Amino acid sequence: MESITVGQFDLIYNSFSFTIAVMGAATIFAFLGRSQVGPAYRTALTLSGLVTAIACYHYVRIFNSWEAAYVLTNGKMTLTGVPFNDAYRYVDWLLTVPLLLVELILVMRLSSKETIAKGLRLGLLAALMVILGYPGEVSATTNGRWLWWILAMIPFVIIVYDLSAGLRASIDKQPDSVKSLVRTARTLTIASWCFYPIVFIFPMIGFTGGNATTAVQVGYTIADIVSKAVFGVLIYMIAIRKSEAENYAGSALPAATK
Amino acid sequence: MESITVGQFDLIYNSFSFTIAVMGAATIFAFLGRSQVGPAYRTALTLSGLVTAIACYHYVRIFNSWEAAYVLTNGKMTLTGVPFNDAYRYVDWLLTVPLLLVELILVMRLSSKETIAKGLRLGLLAALMVILGYPGEVSATTNGRWLWWILAMIPFVIIVYDLSAGLRASIDKQPDSVKSLVRTARTLTIASWCFYPIVFIFPMIGFTGGNATTAVQVGYTIADIVSKAVFGVLIYMIAIRKSEAENYAGSALPAATK
Repeated sequence: MESITVGQFDLIYNSFSFTIAVMGAATIFAFLGRSQVGPAYRTALTLSGLVTAIACYHYVRIFNSWEAAYVLTNGKMTLTGVPFNDAYRYVDWLLTVPLLLVELILVMRLSSKETIAKGLRLGLLAALMVILGYPGEVSATTNGRWLWWILAMIPFVIIVYDLSAGLRASIDKQPDSVKSLVRTARTLTIASWCFYPIVFIFPMIGFTGGNATTAVQVGYTIADIVSKAVFGVLIYMIAIRKSEAENYAGSALPAATK
Repeated sequence: MESITVGQFDLIYNSFSFTIAVMGAATIFAFLGRSQVGPAYRTALTLSGLVTAIACYHYVRIFNSWEAAYVLTNGKMTLTGVPFNDAYRYVDWLLTVPLLLVELILVMRLSSKETIAKGLRLGLLAALMVILGYPGEVSATTNGRWLWWILAMIPFVIIVYDLSAGLRASIDKQPDSVKSLVRTARTLTIASWCFYPIVFIFPMIGFTGGNATTAVQVGYTIADIVSKAVFGVLIYMIAIRKSEAENYAGSALPAATK
């Protein structure tokens, strides 16, 4: 842990609190939205809400751990000696990243066989990616960070390739009204995911001390909000439009679309 | 309680927090899933959610008890003197293990008479098994641990036999679409259950000090996640498929299956 300024401490502190509110709101949005979509899409919204609920729980823990790690003494932030627990992010990702991928697959409503095969494959690759990233995050040396970063990038690249190439045929089979939305969801997933390995290398490319801590914590927080909460809203919109296309009675869009 | 390293403390600490998130998420998943299955299967999902809700509660208690038992002094974990409370696991199991067995029986939708007979028999045997295991867990001697382990293994073996042989006829009567899933649920139950008596004997077969504590705590935690949360997802999938096979309107699978 590095020494940081009062301004940096507050920025991170307020980002964490903001994220608790965002994740909690996204959870309620997803769960309430379930009744507005056809039965086939409800599990996707359930998973969307679970992802943000799990993230909300972990941001409460992260917030508390952050608060316990520093104390304001004579106008300066000093370390209390209680270490800030970086592991909360990784146990969060271990659960939520596979769920996010399954959520994307479920909303596409592929065949049962394809759903299970793609879900298992992407879910396991995502878990492997997170597990390989953690030793790097807590590594004391820059070389250690690079080694595990490179190892974690192997499943990462396979997942991104699967999402961009492997899902193309499935996207082409989607109704016209949602094709572009599904493409956006996929692009958002890939783009927000690319954020993580970039944030990870901040301390290796010149950010030091409080600047490194701030860049990493705020960076991961923004990436989490986009890849979980914003992504959840897209999944909801896809589910609503597909329910409409399939003439599900309860699914009238909030906005008149014709 | 044994002295442990900071790394071991953190591993156990993070496993407990992870499990709180898993059990909470599994609870919401089961309760939301109730509306997607036919009325006959809703009680099974209610029990599934109750099992993980009870486990979530106990893991919060276990987490807090773990945190209270140790303090970081000069970079080392030392005992505070507040003993870690092993009883939380056993009171959890006393409640959840009978419920898990009833959950499996309910999702099979046997006759009312069979459901009650099998539920009572397996539920009581499970409670007896947990009650006999506890004196061994808190026993100060290896001989004491072995004695109660052997006694608890008697109902354990009867339950495993009942599940593997006694349920065969009932499984053969299940619709084709779920036969293999029900078999998987039964195998998962037996396999994850076999974990517990194995974890129990870790301290008796050479694990000592911090290694024994870590092996036991992480071992039980993994077994709990598999036998409660992963099992719950399987029960949900069986309930969805059976509702579909019985043409329940609200149960369209997330994936188009035809």
